[in-house]
Amino acid sequence: MTKQVAIVLAGCGVFDGSEIYETTLTMLRLDQLGISYRCFAPDIAQHHVINHLTQAPAEGESRNVLQESARLARGDISPITELEADKFDAVIVPGGFGVAKNLSDFAIQGDSMQVLDSLKEVLAGFKEEAKPIGLMCISPVMVPRLLGEGIAVTVGNDPGVSGAISAMGGLHRSCAVEDIVVDHEHRVVTTPAYMLATRISEAATGIFKLVDRIDDMID
Amino acid sequence: MTKQVAIVLAGCGVFDGSEIYETTLTMLRLDQLGISYRCFAPDIAQHHVINHLTQAPAEGESRNVLQESARLARGDISPITELEADKFDAVIVPGGFGVAKNLSDFAIQGDSMQVLDSLKEVLAGFKEEAKPIGLMCISPVMVPRLLGEGIAVTVGNDPGVSGAISAMGGLHRSCAVEDIVVDHEHRVVTTPAYMLATRISEAATGIFKLVDRIDDMID
Repeated sequence: MTKQVAIVLAGCGVFDGSEIYETTLTMLRLDQLGISYRCFAPDIAQHHVINHLTQAPAEGESRNVLQESARLARGDISPITELEADKFDAVIVPGGFGVAKNLSDFAIQGDSMQVLDSLKEVLAGFKEEAKPIGLMCISPVMVPRLLGEGIAVTVGNDPGVSGAISAMGGLHRSCAVEDIVVDHEHRVVTTPAYMLATRISEAATGIFKLVDRIDDMID
Repeated sequence: MTKQVAIVLAGCGVFDGSEIYETTLTMLRLDQLGISYRCFAPDIAQHHVINHLTQAPAEGESRNVLQESARLARGDISPITELEADKFDAVIVPGGFGVAKNLSDFAIQGDSMQVLDSLKEVLAGFKEEAKPIGLMCISPVMVPRLLGEGIAVTVGNDPGVSGAISAMGGLHRSCAVEDIVVDHEHRVVTTPAYMLATRISEAATGIFKLVDRIDDMID
């Protein structure tokens, strides 16, 4: 039977949503390995809209996370409340500032952050069933709140973010852009992606490695 | 010296902008080959905004093509009026409905379509210097208006679009999703991508082949 992986999105665009290349590269590798995937996102308003040309907030504009995530999924997406861990073999959360603004409030609260309840419930299901969980870029910062303390993750080598992970009870491991960190006990795989990448091919190498490892762990 | 390729975008999202995966896969392959790229888009309002969840137009909403394209370029983009053919070795235009709504009016006018003047001027420069031009998905429908009659292109096997290409004086060649059509005389390379693709890995195969061929033609 075909393996099934859920992908959790947070909008569409590096500065206020999910990182586009990280998401696309995740899908590419899953499909190349013959693994099916389905996208999910919360049906909530975005924290804000960033004009990606100027990188300034677009005043007075609002967008919906599920609708914008649908751009990244070519329309083929469901609300995160419909994501059931027992129907999937693994879950992957790409990065982008939307993770720190829409899926959590890390961008505002730092190590006092909270994670969206609907995401927390869903990830608890994967954790309970010991199914592999992949996170990239800034997403691993959610791990202490999402999955508990003492889980090894990486966001590359950013002192601020790794410090916050430690402050919340997580374990941060430094890691190169083309590599991954695996917490075997907790079945969590992370890679720095655009926390470090300066070229799309660098991000691809780490992300492909993450997806390959998730594939191995499903077996 | 590093080869330089210009990428022309039309927004961000398959139904009202540039197709996200086609654009990302183009960038990935260029970067894997060590080719530099820079993105350009027209600084104009989108024809309309499509809610990608429902596929219906979002009434009363308007977005700017350059700003939305900036999402696909992680902010690293310039207005198309700044694109000079003599500074690049080739140009590539990914697909998506934005090509038929923002870069041209094919979606509304069919074979009476017009192409955006700024795009026409830029492409004329590449044609004049005999530099390779790559187009994918629906973009090849612009070729008769952009580059002239009698140029062989493909959009896969869609009878409506290929009929329109013929009606405008173009030459349409049927082509599988994982292949390309090359007009050697006019230095134009095309691939069906999401006109035919049902999986991202299929689109990747054709797009990688297109980029590889453009690379060869630059030498």
